Amino acid sequence: MDATGAVTRAVTEFAAHHPDLGREVCVGLSGGPDSLALLACALRADLHVHALVVDHGLQPGSDAVASAAADAALALGAEATVLPVRVGSDGGMEAAARTARYAALDDARDGRPVLLAHTADDQAETVLLGLARGSGARSIAGMRAWNPPWGRPLLDVRRAQTLAACAELGLRPHHDPHNRDPRFTRVRVRSEVLPLLDDVLHGGVVEALGRTADSLQADNDALDALADDLRTRAAVGDDLDAEVLAVAPAAVRTRALRCWLLDVGATEPTHRVIGAVDAMVTDRRSRAQVAIGGDPAARTVVVRSDSRLRVERTPR
Amino acid sequence: MDATGAVTRAVTEFAAHHPDLGREVCVGLSGGPDSLALLACALRADLHVHALVVDHGLQPGSDAVASAAADAALALGAEATVLPVRVGSDGGMEAAARTARYAALDDARDGRPVLLAHTADDQAETVLLGLARGSGARSIAGMRAWNPPWGRPLLDVRRAQTLAACAELGLRPHHDPHNRDPRFTRVRVRSEVLPLLDDVLHGGVVEALGRTADSLQADNDALDALADDLRTRAAVGDDLDAEVLAVAPAAVRTRALRCWLLDVGATEPTHRVIGAVDAMVTDRRSRAQVAIGGDPAARTVVVRSDSRLRVERTPR
Repeated sequence: MDATGAVTRAVTEFAAHHPDLGREVCVGLSGGPDSLALLACALRADLHVHALVVDHGLQPGSDAVASAAADAALALGAEATVLPVRVGSDGGMEAAARTARYAALDDARDGRPVLLAHTADDQAETVLLGLARGSGARSIAGMRAWNPPWGRPLLDVRRAQTLAACAELGLRPHHDPHNRDPRFTRVRVRSEVLPLLDDVLHGGVVEALGRTADSLQADNDALDALADDLRTRAAVGDDLDAEVLAVAPAAVRTRALRCWLLDVGATEPTHRVIGAVDAMVTDRRSRAQVAIGGDPAARTVVVRSDSRLRVERTPR
Repeated sequence: MDATGAVTRAVTEFAAHHPDLGREVCVGLSGGPDSLALLACALRADLHVHALVVDHGLQPGSDAVASAAADAALALGAEATVLPVRVGSDGGMEAAARTARYAALDDARDGRPVLLAHTADDQAETVLLGLARGSGARSIAGMRAWNPPWGRPLLDVRRAQTLAACAELGLRPHHDPHNRDPRFTRVRVRSEVLPLLDDVLHGGVVEALGRTADSLQADNDALDALADDLRTRAAVGDDLDAEVLAVAPAAVRTRALRCWLLDVGATEPTHRVIGAVDAMVTDRRSRAQVAIGGDPAARTVVVRSDSRLRVERTPR
């Protein structure tokens, strides 16, 4: 099968597998090879496509790149809209651009799902980046294929195939210089780490990382559902009953504690904080209180009294 | 704290955390820096230590290396035994040596637990090697700290610390040339992949991989227990009731199917085989039968009839 056929089949199978997707979709279009191939093949898969082109305004001439991408979409028979955004600086430039991009797409999608062109290579990079955070299955599980309204039909398609599909279709994708800038961690994972791993491990690493992501997503789904149930059973108003928690398996207990900590105001609790609160559940000799941060105006701690875990705030 | 103190504390805390370990232990001693430091520090942690030195006979002079290691153990105040083994060739030299080593240690331990000197660096290598197999949490979860009779007190200790401890104690460890031979995948993961990942991800990779292993072990424990329960509930003689399986979460169902396939004679079923059998449970349009291999003398398939999954063997 040619590359265009392979990419089109990926879109067709995705649509068949997720009937709630519908036939009217948006496609997030950067003008790069992945999203241009996705757009062309979504049209070939008989979807009605509205291309959404985000202009991040981060490089001189980004407006021209965006309108060229929109023109390409129109020429292929899609509708197209350019969405200029202002990128802030929270959490670094990559994260801020991502936040602005998803917000603009969500604003513009008008009830339709948005297909994104992440490939198997992107998924492998995401898994490796998550592994490095060391926060367990949640961070290694990568991106989901269908997390409404976001759909990713190309997670099993290699980047080489989207490039080849563009060539077959006579499309001329834009090559973003950011994608080759080694100051970005993701670029170095892509250009240095994955090729070395593939060499050392005798091939198949991108596929193996994709299977890992799928498998850990399934694990997470099962454990998150159990944690949700445990949290409900352990809730006593805003507090938690430690004795109900104590008899649950560690993987379920720590997930329930993480959700509770998020709800009571901790910002993304670390492995260390969750472990310390969990020790209050399982180990009578543990610390009397654990600081959980989250509120700059008050010292916030979890304390245990009798069988209850409770949050206490002391204004600073 | 000096390195000797850090390694000794790791052993002391391990023994306190696992009271079922007892005070009489064996230590697997290669004569390398990790196991020599473990041996010396186990003695400092007031354990009664019997060093077991496996001579794999794979290199000329391996007997001299083994007896020098045993002498070093005796000089430190431990008992010591050299165990010559014959390494087969099943699954490659590394795997065959490992199988022979564990069998010899298990034979010689005489009811006592065996402490092994795997460090945080070994754990990180194991996680990365498992990741490349792509078979999910089971293969990424690395080595367990306490899987009786095997104990690994140094999983949070860096290799640099065991080396430093040997230097502080005036011990002269053997440096196995295999540990630098780039024909071994693990050696390349150690000497090339981990240093590159650490550079690209700005440090902390060994620690992050260790946390990942801990977290996935907890996930696996919870899901394996649920799968065990599911399998019991779904069992109808040697068959499985697909309707009982179908309502369970995918992560639990696929684990239950894997155990069943192993019990009915499949050799380590692949991701693909488990997925195909799982599709027989969840998807009415799936294949009528799935070949599971395992028996060279018979074609072995799983079939579904009504709500039952059953194994059928046809002699070749």
